[in-house]
Amino acid sequence: MRLIDLSVPINEDTPIYPGDPKTEIKPNGVMDTDGYEDHFVCVGTHVGTHVDAPRHMIKDGKSLDQITPDNFAGRGIVIDVRNGFSLEKVKAADIKEGDIVLFYTGMSHRYHQSAYYDAYPAITEEIAGYLVEKKIKMVGVDMCSVDHEPFKVHKIFLKEQILIIENLTNLEALIGREFKIYAFPIKLQIDGAPARVIAEILG
Amino acid sequence: MRLIDLSVPINEDTPIYPGDPKTEIKPNGVMDTDGYEDHFVCVGTHVGTHVDAPRHMIKDGKSLDQITPDNFAGRGIVIDVRNGFSLEKVKAADIKEGDIVLFYTGMSHRYHQSAYYDAYPAITEEIAGYLVEKKIKMVGVDMCSVDHEPFKVHKIFLKEQILIIENLTNLEALIGREFKIYAFPIKLQIDGAPARVIAEILG
Repeated sequence: MRLIDLSVPINEDTPIYPGDPKTEIKPNGVMDTDGYEDHFVCVGTHVGTHVDAPRHMIKDGKSLDQITPDNFAGRGIVIDVRNGFSLEKVKAADIKEGDIVLFYTGMSHRYHQSAYYDAYPAITEEIAGYLVEKKIKMVGVDMCSVDHEPFKVHKIFLKEQILIIENLTNLEALIGREFKIYAFPIKLQIDGAPARVIAEILG
Repeated sequence: MRLIDLSVPINEDTPIYPGDPKTEIKPNGVMDTDGYEDHFVCVGTHVGTHVDAPRHMIKDGKSLDQITPDNFAGRGIVIDVRNGFSLEKVKAADIKEGDIVLFYTGMSHRYHQSAYYDAYPAITEEIAGYLVEKKIKMVGVDMCSVDHEPFKVHKIFLKEQILIIENLTNLEALIGREFKIYAFPIKLQIDGAPARVIAEILG
């Protein structure tokens, strides 16, 4: 298998969405005294590479554990939008029902700059509506969010049970490839969770 | 795809290995006042279904982020050891290099009983040595641990970069099946992490 990791590492320096709680990682067991090493890790549910469940933005929406595993894996499509989002580019991609559509904006290259949180592009409502019609499974971005306040695009997707993956990285490695996506969040029973997102290159 | 979730949910009632820190899940954003929902989640690195990196028991061993993604996916083999671990049963399974070997002990059915932590069977050192020779990728159990103090079996596996998956569930669904395992831990740079573990049934 040729697997590519699309996930950022999670540590105390992992950038945090403004207003979200800071990551804390503290030792619990220590090798020299306990003979083993373990840690206590405190994170916001939307830290690093993560999946949004409907409940994140839709009142009484489904929590992550209410989504079947089939929703977390599928054929991947990457769309290069480094020059901006446009419906034409999205229509030109051969999107099929059940696909996982990733947008490569290039923002991941600015992950540790303030621009990452204050100067990122947004998926348009028109594009979101088109992807809903196409019945995709998930949408993913190499940005901190798919849109800005008041988060209309978030709500368009989540209302239709299309899960959102944010803070992806390495999307450039997928350009021109056929691949599958596995975007498996840990099984929290709430609004979202950190996920390990891996692409399997098929050709 | 036919995917089966082998992961337990993580909440404040998820059983905790004796001595490990208790899970805390607190609201951060609240729908009615903030217009979105998110949480702050504090967990030990070995809570629920999780993966042990070499560093958990081997001084200066590899941390989880130093393991390539190919190590987290592969052909799965399940061995029914409800009547006890034996080398003969393991030898009878057609184990190949790179396999992910899961032991179905039945302990997951006692997940919320004290027995889960004080009366579980252990993989023998002989079996662990055989699996090392076979060059398997990962070993997984539906128990809180692969062995008891002083954790010799943990060390046999981790020293050889064979990762350990603990607190699996639903292994009975794999008996008699051909399947692949995806055991993707979140990308912490330490001794281990919660993981979503999914089986893909092939036949």
